[in-house]
Amino acid sequence: MKSLHRPDLYGWSTFNPARNIDFNGIAWIRPNGNILIDPVALSNHDWNHLESLGGVDWIVLTNSEHIRAAKEIAAQTYAKVAGPAAEKEIFSIACDRWLSDGDELVPGLKTIELQGSKTPGELALLLEETTLITGDLIRAHKAGTLTILPKEKLLNPEAAIASVRKLAQLPNIETVLVGDGWSVFRDGHLRLKELAATL
Amino acid sequence: MKSLHRPDLYGWSTFNPARNIDFNGIAWIRPNGNILIDPVALSNHDWNHLESLGGVDWIVLTNSEHIRAAKEIAAQTYAKVAGPAAEKEIFSIACDRWLSDGDELVPGLKTIELQGSKTPGELALLLEETTLITGDLIRAHKAGTLTILPKEKLLNPEAAIASVRKLAQLPNIETVLVGDGWSVFRDGHLRLKELAATL
Repeated sequence: MKSLHRPDLYGWSTFNPARNIDFNGIAWIRPNGNILIDPVALSNHDWNHLESLGGVDWIVLTNSEHIRAAKEIAAQTYAKVAGPAAEKEIFSIACDRWLSDGDELVPGLKTIELQGSKTPGELALLLEETTLITGDLIRAHKAGTLTILPKEKLLNPEAAIASVRKLAQLPNIETVLVGDGWSVFRDGHLRLKELAATL
Repeated sequence: MKSLHRPDLYGWSTFNPARNIDFNGIAWIRPNGNILIDPVALSNHDWNHLESLGGVDWIVLTNSEHIRAAKEIAAQTYAKVAGPAAEKEIFSIACDRWLSDGDELVPGLKTIELQGSKTPGELALLLEETTLITGDLIRAHKAGTLTILPKEKLLNPEAAIASVRKLAQLPNIETVLVGDGWSVFRDGHLRLKELAATL
């Protein structure tokens, strides 16, 4: 896995040839149990790396289209799984916890529920106020510039835009880790404001 | 290949498990012939993508330790190869052109010769004043923060630091594309100044 912007955060990716972007998984390494977010498949090397850092305690899935390699990883590690409460009825993987707006799975990892995206109640996660982790709605196909899903993929474009505007008001975001495409590691708040201004 | 920060620039990567970073190749798509810089191996998908964008006219290698997949690509495409003039005597791949400080391989692609790095006369490339492309000396293992090779790998640390300081004085750098690790897509000039301040 690759070091991200903090020594306790790692990322790994698989390239998606249909869209010519990377799909990214994230690992937060914590003394009280590591957390994976929207994990894509791990190579043997990355699997060993993760094991050497303490394995997996929780897997958080931001939406039902980002289940990716979570089933295999959960089966092999006995990790607990958390998913979006709004998709509880149709989620295709058993969850130990359903997350709604304001929930804190562990100290320092806050849930923000987005509205109107591709799926109901898609999760964004706010890690210690400065790192925003997004699933599908906010993404980046062009490096250095955040974008959102195309309108035709949104359940409710107006609600989705309102959700993005809310994220753009978070004052302390330095980093935006996206599930799809190019993450932004500096001045995340400015990049979110720029995005909101285009909507 | 993945879109970078401009529609005419693409990148693709191979993960290096020894260092847990990506090694990156770059493609500049131009009406008068595409240019690859320090190309790593291309997947079949990326190869087809590159062919669909016009193939390869030139391959530029920043130093003798970044030859990577250049031999195979040159053999298959008949691309011409350019390398650092200071390594002319020992370069392990035939070059059609040797680049020195100030040379412009094609309009808009200026050569900057660095001193004191792992190899003599390592090249950095300045693409239309705003995108700096670095080979080995400037790199990023931590996302969002530029660094340089460790001192013990440098031929001459003082000369290498002086070269970095020179790059940090280029006023219009928005993007720093690194051969090894995490590229910086915004505020490149600030990131280079921050780097210079740590040396």
